[in-house]
Amino acid sequence: MKKSLPLSSIRIDDSYWNRYTKLIPEKVIPYQWDVLNDKRSDASPSYCLKNFRVAAGEEKGKQQGMVFQDSDVTKWLEAVAYSLATRPDPQLEKTADEVIALIGRAQEKDGYLNTYFTLNYLREKWQNLTEGHELYCAGHLIEAAVAYYDTTGKKALLEIACRFTDLICKTFGSDDDQMHGYPGHPEIELALVRLYHATNITRYLDLAKYFIDVRGGQPNYFYEEKKRPGFRHIFGESYGFEPKYFQSHLPVRKQTTAEGHAVRALYLYCAMADLAEEYNDDELLESCKTLWNNIVQKRMYITGSVGSSGHLERFTVDYDLPNDSNYSETCASIALVMFGQRMAKVTGDASYFDTAELALYNSVRSGISLDGEKYFYVNPMEVVPQVCIDHVSKSHIKPVRQKWFDCACCPTNVARTFTSLGQYIYFIEENELFINLFIQNETTFTIEGKKVTLSLVTDYPKTGVSKIKVKTEDTSINLNIRIPSFAKDFSVTINDNSTSGENKNNYFHISNVKDGDEIIVSFSITPRIVYPNPKVPNNCGKVAIVRGPEVYCFEECDNGENLAALELDTSSPLIEQWQEDLLGGIMTIKVKGNRTIIKDDTEPFSEKYDPNLIENKKEIELTALPYAFWCNRTTGEMLVWIRAC
Amino acid sequence: MKKSLPLSSIRIDDSYWNRYTKLIPEKVIPYQWDVLNDKRSDASPSYCLKNFRVAAGEEKGKQQGMVFQDSDVTKWLEAVAYSLATRPDPQLEKTADEVIALIGRAQEKDGYLNTYFTLNYLREKWQNLTEGHELYCAGHLIEAAVAYYDTTGKKALLEIACRFTDLICKTFGSDDDQMHGYPGHPEIELALVRLYHATNITRYLDLAKYFIDVRGGQPNYFYEEKKRPGFRHIFGESYGFEPKYFQSHLPVRKQTTAEGHAVRALYLYCAMADLAEEYNDDELLESCKTLWNNIVQKRMYITGSVGSSGHLERFTVDYDLPNDSNYSETCASIALVMFGQRMAKVTGDASYFDTAELALYNSVRSGISLDGEKYFYVNPMEVVPQVCIDHVSKSHIKPVRQKWFDCACCPTNVARTFTSLGQYIYFIEENELFINLFIQNETTFTIEGKKVTLSLVTDYPKTGVSKIKVKTEDTSINLNIRIPSFAKDFSVTINDNSTSGENKNNYFHISNVKDGDEIIVSFSITPRIVYPNPKVPNNCGKVAIVRGPEVYCFEECDNGENLAALELDTSSPLIEQWQEDLLGGIMTIKVKGNRTIIKDDTEPFSEKYDPNLIENKKEIELTALPYAFWCNRTTGEMLVWIRAC
Repeated sequence: MKKSLPLSSIRIDDSYWNRYTKLIPEKVIPYQWDVLNDKRSDASPSYCLKNFRVAAGEEKGKQQGMVFQDSDVTKWLEAVAYSLATRPDPQLEKTADEVIALIGRAQEKDGYLNTYFTLNYLREKWQNLTEGHELYCAGHLIEAAVAYYDTTGKKALLEIACRFTDLICKTFGSDDDQMHGYPGHPEIELALVRLYHATNITRYLDLAKYFIDVRGGQPNYFYEEKKRPGFRHIFGESYGFEPKYFQSHLPVRKQTTAEGHAVRALYLYCAMADLAEEYNDDELLESCKTLWNNIVQKRMYITGSVGSSGHLERFTVDYDLPNDSNYSETCASIALVMFGQRMAKVTGDASYFDTAELALYNSVRSGISLDGEKYFYVNPMEVVPQVCIDHVSKSHIKPVRQKWFDCACCPTNVARTFTSLGQYIYFIEENELFINLFIQNETTFTIEGKKVTLSLVTDYPKTGVSKIKVKTEDTSINLNIRIPSFAKDFSVTINDNSTSGENKNNYFHISNVKDGDEIIVSFSITPRIVYPNPKVPNNCGKVAIVRGPEVYCFEECDNGENLAALELDTSSPLIEQWQEDLLGGIMTIKVKGNRTIIKDDTEPFSEKYDPNLIENKKEIELTALPYAFWCNRTTGEMLVWIRAC
Repeated sequence: MKKSLPLSSIRIDDSYWNRYTKLIPEKVIPYQWDVLNDKRSDASPSYCLKNFRVAAGEEKGKQQGMVFQDSDVTKWLEAVAYSLATRPDPQLEKTADEVIALIGRAQEKDGYLNTYFTLNYLREKWQNLTEGHELYCAGHLIEAAVAYYDTTGKKALLEIACRFTDLICKTFGSDDDQMHGYPGHPEIELALVRLYHATNITRYLDLAKYFIDVRGGQPNYFYEEKKRPGFRHIFGESYGFEPKYFQSHLPVRKQTTAEGHAVRALYLYCAMADLAEEYNDDELLESCKTLWNNIVQKRMYITGSVGSSGHLERFTVDYDLPNDSNYSETCASIALVMFGQRMAKVTGDASYFDTAELALYNSVRSGISLDGEKYFYVNPMEVVPQVCIDHVSKSHIKPVRQKWFDCACCPTNVARTFTSLGQYIYFIEENELFINLFIQNETTFTIEGKKVTLSLVTDYPKTGVSKIKVKTEDTSINLNIRIPSFAKDFSVTINDNSTSGENKNNYFHISNVKDGDEIIVSFSITPRIVYPNPKVPNNCGKVAIVRGPEVYCFEECDNGENLAALELDTSSPLIEQWQEDLLGGIMTIKVKGNRTIIKDDTEPFSEKYDPNLIENKKEIELTALPYAFWCNRTTGEMLVWIRAC
């Protein structure tokens, strides 16, 4: 079974990623700590830590915030854990230990842990799995606990999580005296697999399998629980209620299309992939592949984001990918990275990382500002700020990143993702090392008891050249280097000798790499014009620019207002310009195009507005920059898919 | 002051309009009667008549349906009244008289009349003007009463309406012991002007003026009333609440942009135009012109529909006109016709009828099926049926007309509009007759006591030729014939002699028309390609076809699925084809174009999908038909704005 290398063994020092990997511990974790403690007057109140203090009996009050508010703390703790793996910070660790102790004091005697129900609705525990998010919060608690144990070796949070999980194991299952339900928001399933690996306690893995297998059975559990006397809606009578929204319309093995709330769906699929591997369950793996293909081929944006419907943050139908009213939640892209990593791990096929990398480099990064204090929950493909007003269909689209959110899942999710970036770079299995991402780092690990140090030096994606050096004591490793789908001229030299190598599942396989070997991987990264699948209605006639893993966009501050009136000349060359001083160093792209300009526009439509008339057309040079970095200068329009001429 | 000719004096017999003017009395009014009596198991229950019977103490129960459910009955009665004007139907009139008597029995002693409050919330009368719709329902009651009195001479409903209005006059006004509020949903204001004309009671006109003048003052009445103890929300805490939604953000004379719920806005503007005329109020008229121009130049769809936001059925901002997620409510287009008629009346400028005609011929007609039993509430510019699913952002878009609606304002509104079509054809003022619309009819009226009969013979908009014959006893009239904005070659002959005439405010003015004169108006109606204002983002690169007052669209059943993949060749001629047997006789238009076809589409985007590659392009002939008639054959995609090449 492939595993990621431990985070503590990987030192990332990458000219491209440092802007995030340094930012998170230096600014984001402290900023989020302030927010979770309601110390930022410019951000929505969080109540998170207060809720735990109240539950611990140390303050008076009720739980405030969303039903899943607790998870913001545990996701923050998870980010802290990953950060401590490579960046010791005794003060931060002390703070985290105190939070963990507080969480422990807020835990009920039987292990139950959820401030919303403990403080506000004690009698409603487990009574509304559809909306209650208890199991979701438990999942994030478990993930934080495993992370904190892995990187600090401290067991306090793990013990809290196990006590709660043991209660959940008692409460849910197939026995007659157990509840036969499953979470409205999947998350605990993948967390239980992690907990099993941390503890070797098989009942945790079994419970994950139970939740997966029972999901979507008939009669639908979510309909049934609503019939119980005293059932109370948390989000209102009509909240998204249809089984598809909750991925409970069919048993998971019968599901063939990605449905409903995108984050729920993808966390579920992650657990399905995990369990397919743990149980060697080919049927479940086939379902994962089918769902993956449905997403990637028909329901995913070019930036690796998903969720076409603003209403309910959800998948809709094949090829419905509106650019200006979509959801494309940051968390959903994070979940897609997680699903892609798992699919690559279980199948051994590197091509899943093409999509994981796409999401990571584009819509996950767009979710956070370069100063680390502002976030996008929703990541549109195009924005016209003046239409994103309150109380209209597009009010979910924010033209600028926000300080915080009432429902603040994304900021902490970005933090835990970027602090654990190392987990995506490598897989190891016996003496096979798999390199999935081209991120400059040095890592040390052992193979058959022998220490191996590998350094990967690259300025990717500025170029596609990576230099890999191996130091080892008297052993050899096999290297498997991912061949990105766009790397048509992928080539490898070993100690300056070219090698033909072998493409194994989209990894370039090199056997018997020894101490002192230097491997140079290179492929060209040139900007390309890509065309949409014509079945996506709103993209017909448009093109996008991609360069390596990065999708490009056009911003108003470079190209003037009314970006929709621009056309890109596809016959004109795409000129790269490295701009060292811009946004931490980025590659911009210049290309010729034109703009439609109408002088007298008092009519809503007219024969006179023909854009092909010389008086209505102006030639201009267009400037594009990577989508990840949009909205880091001024507020304005943004566009990914641009009309072509 | 210009007036419409009485409906009873106009016999419409028009090859184009007969499909509706005969349909309404023959099928729609009986169908709606069944629905209002809950006799159609295939349509949403209405409860309308039942509510009145319960309020009259003749059945037990509570009011059911929307808070404004009563207005469906009064709008139906208004349609019946207009229908009886030219099509006597003793059985229908007897039914209407019985309904009127029932309404009378449901009226409270003090004149109050509203089944929702009488039956369910007696203590909340007038306490929630924001959401309560009491004044809105009163307005529709008044309109029905005036209509029924005008066409039947019967006073029963008028007396009911006056009793209620007298109560309202006592309740609302500037005196200290009166309420200083105004309706959340305008409608009563324009109705009060009608009631004043029917009764000559000036306090009704004064109350209309009061409601208009007090609206949008500070502090905002709608905020204030929420502070009262016991205030109860009807539509929920957050229902569209911002002053703009209710056109109460500013005094109406300070409003310069069309804001909020489109129907509310337009009913308000209608009353403003009425009062500008009644009081010779130039300032108010200027506001009307400013609002009109804002709508027509910046916030209106090519079909004459408005309401860019699906959420809250409202205006958004200038040039925000999404094609596939808009509201474009049928009622809003009806209200735009009403506003245009009033603006033409008060200013004497025929050009307002260009927009009124546009709305009438396109988005009002699209609101009803040719069998009269199915309705569109929402009239999109493009539809892909498979994306219009429940619980997503586009769930308000219905790809097929519906049997009825829980909120059923539109079906009865269409019925009253088409049965009173005659009101829009003519204005008369002394010996000046104004012809606004080219609809075949014969009308008889008097000028200075002398009878004049005028017949207008036309097949408009099949052609732009209309023959006008005048018979009169020893008098003459001046004729003013609207010159449509698209009629660039508008010409007139009088008794076969051409005449240069005079363009007076976009009317072709002919003086001294005598008995036996025959006037032939002609202008060419040829299909034209129009281009969007490039400030409308989603229309850039697209074109539309218009022909006379009709906007064209493309349907899947003529052009295959995936209409977005089509391009229209703007250099190719638009070929007209009259199809006598299709949908009651329509002019279709054929034009060359092409379709992008990708064979291997397993990738979401690709360099291989270039639509300019020969293997990806197929030349085809496109077929367009008038937008008004879409979705009368099979369910499928529809598109107005099509990509151009």
